[in-house]
Amino acid sequence: MSNPFFKNSGPFKISELVKLIKIEDYKYNTDIEIIDIKDLIDSGKNEITFYHSKKYKDAAIRTNASFCLTYENLKNDLPKTCNSIIVNNVLFSTSLITAKFYPSSISDEFDSTVKSIEVTKYKNNVKFGKNVLIGDNVVLSENCSIGHNSIIEKNVKIGSNCSIGSNVIIRNSLIHENVKILDNCVIGKHGFGFFPDKTNNLRYPHIGIVIIEDNCEIGCNSTIDRGSMSNTVIGKNTYLDNQIHIAHNVKIGKNSIIAGQVGIAGSTKLGENVKIGGQAGISGHLKIGNNVEIGGGSGVIKDIPDNSKVMGYPAKNFRDFLKENR
Amino acid sequence: MSNPFFKNSGPFKISELVKLIKIEDYKYNTDIEIIDIKDLIDSGKNEITFYHSKKYKDAAIRTNASFCLTYENLKNDLPKTCNSIIVNNVLFSTSLITAKFYPSSISDEFDSTVKSIEVTKYKNNVKFGKNVLIGDNVVLSENCSIGHNSIIEKNVKIGSNCSIGSNVIIRNSLIHENVKILDNCVIGKHGFGFFPDKTNNLRYPHIGIVIIEDNCEIGCNSTIDRGSMSNTVIGKNTYLDNQIHIAHNVKIGKNSIIAGQVGIAGSTKLGENVKIGGQAGISGHLKIGNNVEIGGGSGVIKDIPDNSKVMGYPAKNFRDFLKENR
Amino acid sequence: MSNPFFKNSGPFKISELVKLIKIEDYKYNTDIEIIDIKDLIDSGKNEITFYHSKKYKDAAIRTNASFCLTYENLKNDLPKTCNSIIVNNVLFSTSLITAKFYPSSISDEFDSTVKSIEVTKYKNNVKFGKNVLIGDNVVLSENCSIGHNSIIEKNVKIGSNCSIGSNVIIRNSLIHENVKILDNCVIGKHGFGFFPDKTNNLRYPHIGIVIIEDNCEIGCNSTIDRGSMSNTVIGKNTYLDNQIHIAHNVKIGKNSIIAGQVGIAGSTKLGENVKIGGQAGISGHLKIGNNVEIGGGSGVIKDIPDNSKVMGYPAKNFRDFLKENR
Repeated sequence: MSNPFFKNSGPFKISELVKLIKIEDYKYNTDIEIIDIKDLIDSGKNEITFYHSKKYKDAAIRTNASFCLTYENLKNDLPKTCNSIIVNNVLFSTSLITAKFYPSSISDEFDSTVKSIEVTKYKNNVKFGKNVLIGDNVVLSENCSIGHNSIIEKNVKIGSNCSIGSNVIIRNSLIHENVKILDNCVIGKHGFGFFPDKTNNLRYPHIGIVIIEDNCEIGCNSTIDRGSMSNTVIGKNTYLDNQIHIAHNVKIGKNSIIAGQVGIAGSTKLGENVKIGGQAGISGHLKIGNNVEIGGGSGVIKDIPDNSKVMGYPAKNFRDFLKENR
Repeated sequence: MSNPFFKNSGPFKISELVKLIKIEDYKYNTDIEIIDIKDLIDSGKNEITFYHSKKYKDAAIRTNASFCLTYENLKNDLPKTCNSIIVNNVLFSTSLITAKFYPSSISDEFDSTVKSIEVTKYKNNVKFGKNVLIGDNVVLSENCSIGHNSIIEKNVKIGSNCSIGSNVIIRNSLIHENVKILDNCVIGKHGFGFFPDKTNNLRYPHIGIVIIEDNCEIGCNSTIDRGSMSNTVIGKNTYLDNQIHIAHNVKIGKNSIIAGQVGIAGSTKLGENVKIGGQAGISGHLKIGNNVEIGGGSGVIKDIPDNSKVMGYPAKNFRDFLKENR
Repeated sequence: MSNPFFKNSGPFKISELVKLIKIEDYKYNTDIEIIDIKDLIDSGKNEITFYHSKKYKDAAIRTNASFCLTYENLKNDLPKTCNSIIVNNVLFSTSLITAKFYPSSISDEFDSTVKSIEVTKYKNNVKFGKNVLIGDNVVLSENCSIGHNSIIEKNVKIGSNCSIGSNVIIRNSLIHENVKILDNCVIGKHGFGFFPDKTNNLRYPHIGIVIIEDNCEIGCNSTIDRGSMSNTVIGKNTYLDNQIHIAHNVKIGKNSIIAGQVGIAGSTKLGENVKIGGQAGISGHLKIGNNVEIGGGSGVIKDIPDNSKVMGYPAKNFRDFLKENR
């Protein structure tokens, strides 16, 4: 999927890009124009991608990208159609090139394009409270309501029959139909991603968005961060209670139920019909299967297969947890 | 107690109600008028109640309700004055009938009745910040202050000498005297209660309110949900720190102290003088005694008797926790 | 450091102060004027301090204060230049005298001095959103931006190149340069400190402030409370994720990284380059060394030496945690 919101400043000649990441002796034809940067799976001809861990070997073998930022020891996994560019730190170089293509994706300063909904075309077909602000490139569908003091910043599309509470801030998000977002939520800000540096950490760009599918409900004071290269997705008919934090790139399947104060760390993927008790935490980059139940207060630090019920910190089989704690 | 805030649309003939829950062969006199729906304890003559678990047998035996939604295997616990109506899912049927009596209790859309406090009668006897909004059926007592951007939605009564912070949202709540509610709190929204359904979960009505008694303090960014059938109650002189979540129907006794980021799940009842350390979580439907101390980070999953000190996940006797973790 | 924000109402004669704390038979020259109340280390000649626990003996021996509130069994630790005043409850008496010197430090009612930024001198050299409010004694430096609905209450200084999000509330804080504070944060309110009382808890004064040093980032919906006698400090280039709670008097060293929903209880001190995983909690009054790593979900209840890696509840050596939980 091409990025729906962040404006692509490309194309750029490969010579410009390698110069940016301080590759001096680059040997390929430097006039080739690169049109975008994407992950291994989504990238195609005349696009650049990145490959930084064996974990993604399956995707690397199949990539259609013309160029790939990678390490010496990984380059042979790439197909012949993909030219490897060897760098010292793949993610850092990826970050620099992404920032070149999408300069507006780095800063999350408040949106200065907003204006009162009363002077927009939505004045007559949306129900709204006092002091509602609407940014550029916002689409609001029929029969929506938006509460007091809420700010729909630029790059948001909200489907029909949605109800947005008061004091809500949304940016860079696709909200499907019949979704409820309760008071004080912040949806679509950049994730907690940066390269640590002893003087001044370097933020990496977040060109992903937040997608909230039909019939979801998001509880008060929750935060859902947008993705870095991919998107953060809340599946259909999934309900989140209050004070929940969903980090960048997380994907939650449909019909899931997540109780208050749960936190899900970056890039973790949950299946469908997952139930999570209050205050549970799930580490990043994990895969949680379908129909999984996670007890309240659990700390999940490894993958969980389909149809499992776990509890504890670290989370283990539910019966074992009860047995050990009788 | 009759409901102070949600308007009762009844009475309804019992024939209408049984039709609503798809009972075809109902045998009683169908012209009897039912005036309200309440729990087993509070209901009386010409009212309907519900009984769905042996746990509530003591209350069932004593109910004064004229009708009761229940299961075949529970009906014999009810007194002869109470006509049982056998249904497939007691809570689901209860939900449908409650929604019939209290249609305005389901949606929590923003309150469109609010207006600037500057055009209300409170303009001269309350201290208020910029952009304060006041809904219908709000009572503010003498010597209160309300911070910037705060929204007192409909159905709120605030006693004297209360201090409400900025960006606070309150609805369906009784705030007694000398209470402090700090910035960014959301008080009185509906709880996290619904019937899961594979296409579109069905929310059940929340006709309870939030009651915060004298001298309490509620910390920043906290959320207190209103009750479903009963109320959520914070007892006198109880202090809550920041980022606390109190779910629907929870009752907290007086003189309790609850540190930051604690979460208390639905319908749990805490005694007086309870102390809870930061980030502890308490499961739903539990009974925590008087003078109980719960260590920080604990996960409480069963009842705790008076005067106990517990810690751990799951929480156990405090000395045992320390001994095992030396 | 003398207090930059709270106005000192002193000096007061020692006779006035002892009367306030109901010491009847005080023997010293009662005409001596006391100019301030400070902790053992910072106080000097003609100032009063307090000493309530052997834990602070090293500081007590060296104090330059002229007077000290203390207990009979501690008084001999004080130097001869320091007159001990024996009281029943040191912290309670300290609280009363602090409130006398700094009466404006007790209440955290909303700031009624604020006005729209559009009528202040910052109108032209700060980038700002809609409905931004600025209190008395606020300094905003060049190239700052302040998002919609944010409130910079009195007693705040913000350095150059800072970016404040929307719906943010800041008071009693020094924000250095290039700091980012994201949406819905509350910075600088009083901490969760009070003397429990069966009728009406007595809040103690918070005369400390919040200091956020250069290049920090504070995530959405986070709360950082100001100090009671000392300050709450976030060191240079430290990044906090969303929904974090930092209690009063906490000090965090530079270059630290703290993931979502972490809570740090009062007066704990963290070294430099500390990494903390999501949802971890740290008890109060602890010392966490430099280069410490704390796993997600951990509950830290004792000091941690430099260069350690811990995980668990209670937190222990990381390898032991993994071994025990294989």
